[in-house]
Amino acid sequence: MNATGTHLEHEIREQPDAIMRLVLDHAADAARIGAAVRGLDLRYALIAARGSSDNAARYGQYLFGERLGLPVALAAPSLESLYGAGAVPRHGEGLVIGISQSGRSPDVVSVLAAASVAGAPTIAITNVSDSPLAEVADFVVELHAGTERSIAATKTYTTSLAALAALVAELRDDDADRAALRRVPSLVQRALDAALARVGDLDHHADAAHVLAVGRGYNYATAMEVALKVRELTRAVAEGFSSADLMHGPIAATAPGTPAIVVAPAGRALASVLETSRVLRERGAEPILIAEQSGADLPLPGDVPEWLSPIVAVVPGQVLAMRHAVLRGGEIDAPAGLTKVTETY
Amino acid sequence: MNATGTHLEHEIREQPDAIMRLVLDHAADAARIGAAVRGLDLRYALIAARGSSDNAARYGQYLFGERLGLPVALAAPSLESLYGAGAVPRHGEGLVIGISQSGRSPDVVSVLAAASVAGAPTIAITNVSDSPLAEVADFVVELHAGTERSIAATKTYTTSLAALAALVAELRDDDADRAALRRVPSLVQRALDAALARVGDLDHHADAAHVLAVGRGYNYATAMEVALKVRELTRAVAEGFSSADLMHGPIAATAPGTPAIVVAPAGRALASVLETSRVLRERGAEPILIAEQSGADLPLPGDVPEWLSPIVAVVPGQVLAMRHAVLRGGEIDAPAGLTKVTETY
Repeated sequence: MNATGTHLEHEIREQPDAIMRLVLDHAADAARIGAAVRGLDLRYALIAARGSSDNAARYGQYLFGERLGLPVALAAPSLESLYGAGAVPRHGEGLVIGISQSGRSPDVVSVLAAASVAGAPTIAITNVSDSPLAEVADFVVELHAGTERSIAATKTYTTSLAALAALVAELRDDDADRAALRRVPSLVQRALDAALARVGDLDHHADAAHVLAVGRGYNYATAMEVALKVRELTRAVAEGFSSADLMHGPIAATAPGTPAIVVAPAGRALASVLETSRVLRERGAEPILIAEQSGADLPLPGDVPEWLSPIVAVVPGQVLAMRHAVLRGGEIDAPAGLTKVTETY
Repeated sequence: MNATGTHLEHEIREQPDAIMRLVLDHAADAARIGAAVRGLDLRYALIAARGSSDNAARYGQYLFGERLGLPVALAAPSLESLYGAGAVPRHGEGLVIGISQSGRSPDVVSVLAAASVAGAPTIAITNVSDSPLAEVADFVVELHAGTERSIAATKTYTTSLAALAALVAELRDDDADRAALRRVPSLVQRALDAALARVGDLDHHADAAHVLAVGRGYNYATAMEVALKVRELTRAVAEGFSSADLMHGPIAATAPGTPAIVVAPAGRALASVLETSRVLRERGAEPILIAEQSGADLPLPGDVPEWLSPIVAVVPGQVLAMRHAVLRGGEIDAPAGLTKVTETY
């Protein structure tokens, strides 16, 4: 793929380095926070986020659930901002995490503020260490991603996932987890290189008016995030689905020829996702496979543990969204009608 | 609107009676369960559901949050069915609710089964009292909706909402809440009559390829459910959004002429939803207003408390989806490619 000279391309290519900064250079931050939180008797976690960060939160729901057996509630942020509900954990019974690259999403800040009043421990995951979100939180995991100039979030998304993964490795206090995490930057690099080399083969899909993205389990988040990137950048109507939810009704609206990005890394969700891919193909959709297996359209490296696979598997989707945006024309770094910080109250 | 002779129309029209059965004839069931659960020291609730029932769960998140100050986690069902995570409340710390009209969604059953092993109290909300979900639960709230023959769920959706509302009224042990709930069947009747009288004025939108539905707070669930009905019945690409989330990126893909169903009952979310409607209109979308105010396309009765408004406000959306399905042709009661019970594991 040719260089586009955009901030977006620069930031997509920067991701292996950005993740490396987080998991190697700043590993001590996560370790310190993990050690402090490990001592608490937590019954569940509440994560507040919007936009791309909400997709990171969805990853967190699987990560905390599967790796720690900890139920995770994804906050309905307007419960606090509209209704002042105070529906937050009390007295340290639950951990509250806010994710916002800018740290300036008022409804996410409102959840952490309510939790703070109720006495729950709070963690901010943000790229801006002096933001309102960081100021209200007990602990701050800084993304160290550098300024993100493209409106479409890429490096702040993957570093947010890596921050959650680092936190869970520390909460488990598990050296194998820490070692696995240190391998992620090179896995991301390989997925990125392969996607840049192969994405041109998918140019015939660039004009689609409707695009699906499908994943399950850990990579439901990836499907949602890839759909959001395609939508923001190309203005196609792109929708992310859990392969299970898709079969519960929405599949009715799949017209022949619809590209369906199938996020299918190795792991326990693979069989279900490939089955959905088969049904989609039967209905005339055209699957675009992000997978390790031979025949994948956008190949993933082997040996990616499932719990870390969303950090790797989203990257080919970002590259695809960027490529199709370039082919469709339009402003890549600042798509019409979008702003970097959306201050929903 | 003329009679279509379909199960769907019969079931949509049956809703005031079905809700009345639940909140009047069977009020004692909710009272008994509420009294039993009131004595527990609950820190949060976990709700498991799929499809339309997942939209009911989303209503539950606002209802328990705002009316009880209780945080609600919406379960990621495949955490249990794929990963066996055991990410459920332990020893009565949290209440676990499964919602499934058929009671046969295996991944929803798996969440209640895991909760039961962990010692958490469980409630099944289902239309089938001898279903696997009912059998695994400590308590069963039966919907008493009668058999639903249309694949698109309508009366089991509104009665599921009413069941959640009745449960919360009992957990609050609040006579004003109980009285408000008894008024819902007649409010639903009025919304239904008004929608049937007015829906023909919206026939020019019936051929839209892409439809948005927007709500916020309590009626985020309504927007999601109306979108699902439009999608299942008309095969248009219909998407539900929280008005806040829409502004965080997805609004980029709104083409001129796109119908946008704006769910705007009175309440604290109203101003934000109307502001989004204004922005959508600026971008060339065509808002269809479900609201109490004059000028609404599909009018709602006055004096609906916000916490009960989702039971009323979804009905005009169901009528609109049915009408457009009839105009577009196709099978109303059994849309191609859908089945009544989707057994996702």
